[in-house]
Amino acid sequence: MAGNASWEASDAHDSYAADEAMYLDAASTVAVSPSVIKAMLPFWLSDYANPSSVHAYGKSAAESLENARRIFASDLGAPAHEVIFTSGGTESDNLAIKGMAMALRSAQISDGDTATPRGDRTRRNHIAISAIEHPAIMESAQWMSRYFGFQIDALPVDSSGRVDVEAYETIVSHRTALVSVALANNEVGTMQPISELARIAHLNGALMHTDAVQAAGHVPIDMASLGADAMSVSGHKFGTPKGMGALILRSAAPYEPLISGGGQESGRRSGTQDVAGAVGMAVALHESVQRMRSVGEQIAESRDMLISAVLEAIPEARLTGAREPSQRLPGHASFVFPRVLGEALLVDLDTAGIMCSSGSACSDARDVAPRTLMAMGYDEQTAKTSIRMTFQTPLEPGQIRRIVHVLDSSYHRLAG
Amino acid sequence: MAGNASWEASDAHDSYAADEAMYLDAASTVAVSPSVIKAMLPFWLSDYANPSSVHAYGKSAAESLENARRIFASDLGAPAHEVIFTSGGTESDNLAIKGMAMALRSAQISDGDTATPRGDRTRRNHIAISAIEHPAIMESAQWMSRYFGFQIDALPVDSSGRVDVEAYETIVSHRTALVSVALANNEVGTMQPISELARIAHLNGALMHTDAVQAAGHVPIDMASLGADAMSVSGHKFGTPKGMGALILRSAAPYEPLISGGGQESGRRSGTQDVAGAVGMAVALHESVQRMRSVGEQIAESRDMLISAVLEAIPEARLTGAREPSQRLPGHASFVFPRVLGEALLVDLDTAGIMCSSGSACSDARDVAPRTLMAMGYDEQTAKTSIRMTFQTPLEPGQIRRIVHVLDSSYHRLAG
Repeated sequence: MAGNASWEASDAHDSYAADEAMYLDAASTVAVSPSVIKAMLPFWLSDYANPSSVHAYGKSAAESLENARRIFASDLGAPAHEVIFTSGGTESDNLAIKGMAMALRSAQISDGDTATPRGDRTRRNHIAISAIEHPAIMESAQWMSRYFGFQIDALPVDSSGRVDVEAYETIVSHRTALVSVALANNEVGTMQPISELARIAHLNGALMHTDAVQAAGHVPIDMASLGADAMSVSGHKFGTPKGMGALILRSAAPYEPLISGGGQESGRRSGTQDVAGAVGMAVALHESVQRMRSVGEQIAESRDMLISAVLEAIPEARLTGAREPSQRLPGHASFVFPRVLGEALLVDLDTAGIMCSSGSACSDARDVAPRTLMAMGYDEQTAKTSIRMTFQTPLEPGQIRRIVHVLDSSYHRLAG
Repeated sequence: MAGNASWEASDAHDSYAADEAMYLDAASTVAVSPSVIKAMLPFWLSDYANPSSVHAYGKSAAESLENARRIFASDLGAPAHEVIFTSGGTESDNLAIKGMAMALRSAQISDGDTATPRGDRTRRNHIAISAIEHPAIMESAQWMSRYFGFQIDALPVDSSGRVDVEAYETIVSHRTALVSVALANNEVGTMQPISELARIAHLNGALMHTDAVQAAGHVPIDMASLGADAMSVSGHKFGTPKGMGALILRSAAPYEPLISGGGQESGRRSGTQDVAGAVGMAVALHESVQRMRSVGEQIAESRDMLISAVLEAIPEARLTGAREPSQRLPGHASFVFPRVLGEALLVDLDTAGIMCSSGSACSDARDVAPRTLMAMGYDEQTAKTSIRMTFQTPLEPGQIRRIVHVLDSSYHRLAG
């Protein structure tokens, strides 16, 4: 990690107030900026028509929707017609996994492929996902196993959370329908070599999906160079109101719509389109891309300062996820603190006005074993000591000092 | 219909300006009121945390979400824990049809019911829906047929669009898993006797779902007295921003989640919950219920005046849907105009600043045969002459005169 010179410097000129609450849970969700709300307002108050209506107001709404689609697509390096607006990252993941796998299965059934053995009605009945995927991916794959007989394999990852490419090459085969690996992991911030994984998937004739929920708006994304057939995005992770997301889906990819109805989104996702949401998401992504261009490096530098400061103050602490700065989300620092419970540390941090997470906020089941860290080789007890700090603006030296101070005293009190 | 005395009166004191655009497509969508946006604002700007986060901000968001759920449920006569927040009416319909039918099938398979004949792996493999259901219902049922082998029957309706109860009783059986009939039809505004249909479904051991997308916020709804096991609601039909809806689902109803993931909404619908959307929908529904209490009767009276005026000016015109005012949505008037194309009438109305619909705005496929009216006994040619006018505030006499004037001259020009 980068040097830790500046975090120890005087913060006489810090704009940060020592008793101000500190929100370090940006990977769970972030605030919506007033400019995004301002862009959405007309579509609630005056230009509110249903974009499927044929009258003048409806046509105007449809134009605004398509304009938002163009801007949004362009900031992801995708053609506009490959953008499917959804209600969020989880829905996008479900549409991708279930929609593509079902389409492959039904296509093969209708191809008349009935000569294969019993219980093996398709040539491609295998889904490969990394061992550290988000529950939206893992549970969708399980659903396809339960209802459609797909076989699921978890791709092993190394101690930093990167997919083991050698193992992957032995698991993916001509029977693999679909591979899904997140561009960046939510719990440890590790980024994956998606274009390389996609190349190998395609060599085997399999489709490639990537969950870019943590990455979009936080690192540059170019769908074309990623080489994936489908990519999930969640609007609220980069400043859109919750309830808005997208699936980028290559036109050529086999796909069966999971949500049926009036045929909106070119038949790929039915339901009245949320024009305001689409406009808001396009503006929020564009603002995020611009912000990352201007302060992305500072965010990563402050992340590295935070990591160095924590590891220096608490020598027992260990960074989880990639150590290589370029393989890690810029505003993501995660640790384990052996011998203390992450939840107990969280309570102390919370009491001091510092809001972090023990990992994912995406699960309502709080007592599950920490699957991600265990897949990375941590024992269960250590995995339960994790703390994640995520942010979308650079941390100031005074903030880093306060975080380290609170962590340090809490850790040593709890560790006894 | 009620008398037509007042619409012919002078409108010297009408607040309505003669050249003002008139939006008569409320059944497609309506504006969001500033009070709803004001209630949502804090959840974008300051109280924006993920309600699944365990820190103070997260807990506060979770409390706001549950508070919104209580208020919303109470205005529908349902217990709060039976409310599942979704992205809209189409998603709710999909969750209901697919979720309940899949659960019945999987429950019966795991019961070890394998002694039934080949291709007939469950006792209940039948879904009955009315012949005039929304595409979200019809396509969801077809999806269950395609992937899970359910047999689908369309329940016939009479010339007013009401389900033929005698025919229904012969179609529903001990093999029926699920019946779905909309509380109010979107194209012709006809309301159904859901509690009676539910009673008959339950006598046969079948589940009952009702799509209340057109009804919620426009007529009083009491889930308890409806007797349905599940009910779909769409927020944007009563003043919530698009992208928000709900499925009310009885706790005892078999249900398999269609959208898998982190287990939010008590495991019934995964994905980060849209706290602002839930708050907005609760406020919008409450405001709508109050508005209907205060002006609901006036809306129905102005509907009846509009109907009388249209039928008087254009004797060839026919009202579609229920004539009995109590069996029709209060702000819903729909007609056929034999010998002219509805689309041509729409263009003339649009040019005059009057925005109506030819039926549903929910389909992107514009050239489909007008299924609803044909199921009600209209020939295809007549069915293609339909115009729907829908509104959520009372029409003023001057507005009715202008609508009739434009319709009248357009009709006689087009009919030659």
